[in-house]
Amino acid sequence: MAVATHVRTMLSGSSVIRRLFTEGEEMKRIHGADRVYDFSLGNPDVDPPPAFIETLHAILDERIPNKHGYMASAGLAETRQAIALGIAPEYGVQVPPELVTMTVGAGSALSLAFAVTVNPGDRVLVNAPAFVSYANYLSVHRGTLEMIPGLADFSLNLDEFEQRLGPDVAAVIVNSPNNPSGAIYSKESLVRLAALLDSASERFGRRIYLISDEPYREIVYDDLGVPSPFSCYRHTILVYSWSKSLSVPGERIGYAAIHPAAEDAELLARGMTAMTQNMGYTNAPALMQRAVARLGKASVDVEAYRRRRDMLAAGLKAAGYEFDLPRGAFYLFPKAPGGDDVAFCQALKDERILAVPGSGFGMPGWFRLSYCASESTINGSLPGFARAIQRVLNHSS
Amino acid sequence: MAVATHVRTMLSGSSVIRRLFTEGEEMKRIHGADRVYDFSLGNPDVDPPPAFIETLHAILDERIPNKHGYMASAGLAETRQAIALGIAPEYGVQVPPELVTMTVGAGSALSLAFAVTVNPGDRVLVNAPAFVSYANYLSVHRGTLEMIPGLADFSLNLDEFEQRLGPDVAAVIVNSPNNPSGAIYSKESLVRLAALLDSASERFGRRIYLISDEPYREIVYDDLGVPSPFSCYRHTILVYSWSKSLSVPGERIGYAAIHPAAEDAELLARGMTAMTQNMGYTNAPALMQRAVARLGKASVDVEAYRRRRDMLAAGLKAAGYEFDLPRGAFYLFPKAPGGDDVAFCQALKDERILAVPGSGFGMPGWFRLSYCASESTINGSLPGFARAIQRVLNHSS
Repeated sequence: MAVATHVRTMLSGSSVIRRLFTEGEEMKRIHGADRVYDFSLGNPDVDPPPAFIETLHAILDERIPNKHGYMASAGLAETRQAIALGIAPEYGVQVPPELVTMTVGAGSALSLAFAVTVNPGDRVLVNAPAFVSYANYLSVHRGTLEMIPGLADFSLNLDEFEQRLGPDVAAVIVNSPNNPSGAIYSKESLVRLAALLDSASERFGRRIYLISDEPYREIVYDDLGVPSPFSCYRHTILVYSWSKSLSVPGERIGYAAIHPAAEDAELLARGMTAMTQNMGYTNAPALMQRAVARLGKASVDVEAYRRRRDMLAAGLKAAGYEFDLPRGAFYLFPKAPGGDDVAFCQALKDERILAVPGSGFGMPGWFRLSYCASESTINGSLPGFARAIQRVLNHSS
Repeated sequence: MAVATHVRTMLSGSSVIRRLFTEGEEMKRIHGADRVYDFSLGNPDVDPPPAFIETLHAILDERIPNKHGYMASAGLAETRQAIALGIAPEYGVQVPPELVTMTVGAGSALSLAFAVTVNPGDRVLVNAPAFVSYANYLSVHRGTLEMIPGLADFSLNLDEFEQRLGPDVAAVIVNSPNNPSGAIYSKESLVRLAALLDSASERFGRRIYLISDEPYREIVYDDLGVPSPFSCYRHTILVYSWSKSLSVPGERIGYAAIHPAAEDAELLARGMTAMTQNMGYTNAPALMQRAVARLGKASVDVEAYRRRRDMLAAGLKAAGYEFDLPRGAFYLFPKAPGGDDVAFCQALKDERILAVPGSGFGMPGWFRLSYCASESTINGSLPGFARAIQRVLNHSS
């Protein structure tokens, strides 16, 4: 025995997504990256807005005391202040800067939110389909993720939420716009969820928190706003990342903001600060904190994503795939022809197309395509998509 | 019950250092920052080398595919390659890039090293005096830090190490140049430690790893090299950060490199990759990874630290303080006049001088002064240092 036991266990369980990813890398090595159509990762190929690069140049040239130095664990005062000022008009909530914690991307914001709400053995609920890494983050804090079975229209399955709430539920995650379905939950459903959580918290004598994961907030294709739980339920921790809005997921910059009227709000914030140290984050990267404080609502060109969505959707529709046009984020989530999502993703792989089975998101029978891929990747893939569905349908008829 | 139970427990225990820090902030607010002499934090006030800023400008202007995007969790291939190439001549060890993990500073590198070696309940040993945060990082992985009582010359207390090794010891940390003593451990003592670890690993049927924490590697005042455990014991994980060598601790960039002949080396590396996700780090900041790959051995001006050391040392010596001149890092670790380090740091605080009691580093009776402070801070503080020691000595005589 040398390596820690949980590492052995963790590595022996090989997930479908990880296997697909490794096989995909191997395919690119063999066939060349341009002959493999990779829709498996949410890695934006749209450039950051020019203001991002200009702002970084400016900061590098300015005389700023302690520019790249240590700071309070929760982040730079001016950055937290700027974020609090931005939250007020957008969510209708006045958040004191002390309740904003700057984080190493949304990943660490989620981990901190779990760290301060989850006791060992607790459950955290999320509506399927959902981002698979929530379970990984939770494992460190000894909580478990429970997927609420998804509805075919991808709305919140409120009846099932009501059934599953219990005294061992620490929190509920809401992710809207949703990865992988592209759905945006209605204001009405969020208000009903809030009522369920209030009533269950009273019944079980324990405050159930809501964690609102909003990295796709700006990536929307309608003029309508995205309703947020932060405006509907006061016991909410808002999690945000600039990964998608600035197209900089490798730079790891995000925040967690606690609703000022949340139960134990101040304790949660102090816990996040302490856990920022204990988890080894120390603080969110300084240069990026300085940049986002100045960038305001600068954002990537969402039209580029709309063009990709429409291009891919038109091709898939012509080939006979069934799906709802996503209203936000940059994922298409079609039904798997033949019904078996793992088998169908294998069939796509035979066409050098990489996609992720819905099973990985708690929703078997569907599959995810990230269309943050280049237009040439999308165009090049369409004949393969057509052949794969034909093969499966001919085979099953 | 709302906030997680461990958060309440964590926050109710108020550490001496945290209390001092909070009181110090309050003092600066009241008296003005320039009238408070802060030697409490290891936050470099020396500027990053010009090459750092120039390299960042260049990267921002270049056309690089996926410049700010996601990458493999362990980091950019070219960065890991550059680090492996740098390790070979410096340590005499050929490390394949696959065994290098890019991290969010040394904090996350240490946390990852603990994550892959420590089972719940395990102990990790370190020679006192030692960096207090090791215990915090370990707490997340349910291990405990055990301080080996320090010797007055700050060398490794090998006899005590031998006594304390046991079947529940997962790893030993070595930190040289040492925070807070400035000591550099001799090659001979490291070779003897390696022999102890080999023999104990055999006796207990469990490989005891060594974690070598080397953030101060370049901050040395002699031409002699710094002997590293990485060259003496093959079961070593090397932890490095550019925080001190480039004066950029807020940017969070470091690495962990596993010795290729370590037991389970490949499993440890795969475990680190998986835990990089699970801990919410995702990957080390992309821009900083690109920068350090190009910067080679660029480093801050160590002479600036030597000037500060000599200035502070001369002033303290004249006032009657007892200490060894540090050979590396940027800390002076004098004996506390009167013997009570907490009381003496309180006496310094009455002179508006902030210092950290040795108790916080497992070494009561001493105190730490970070001389990465400006020359005017050092000069301004000297009369206060003289008054404080006089007051204590007059009082106890």
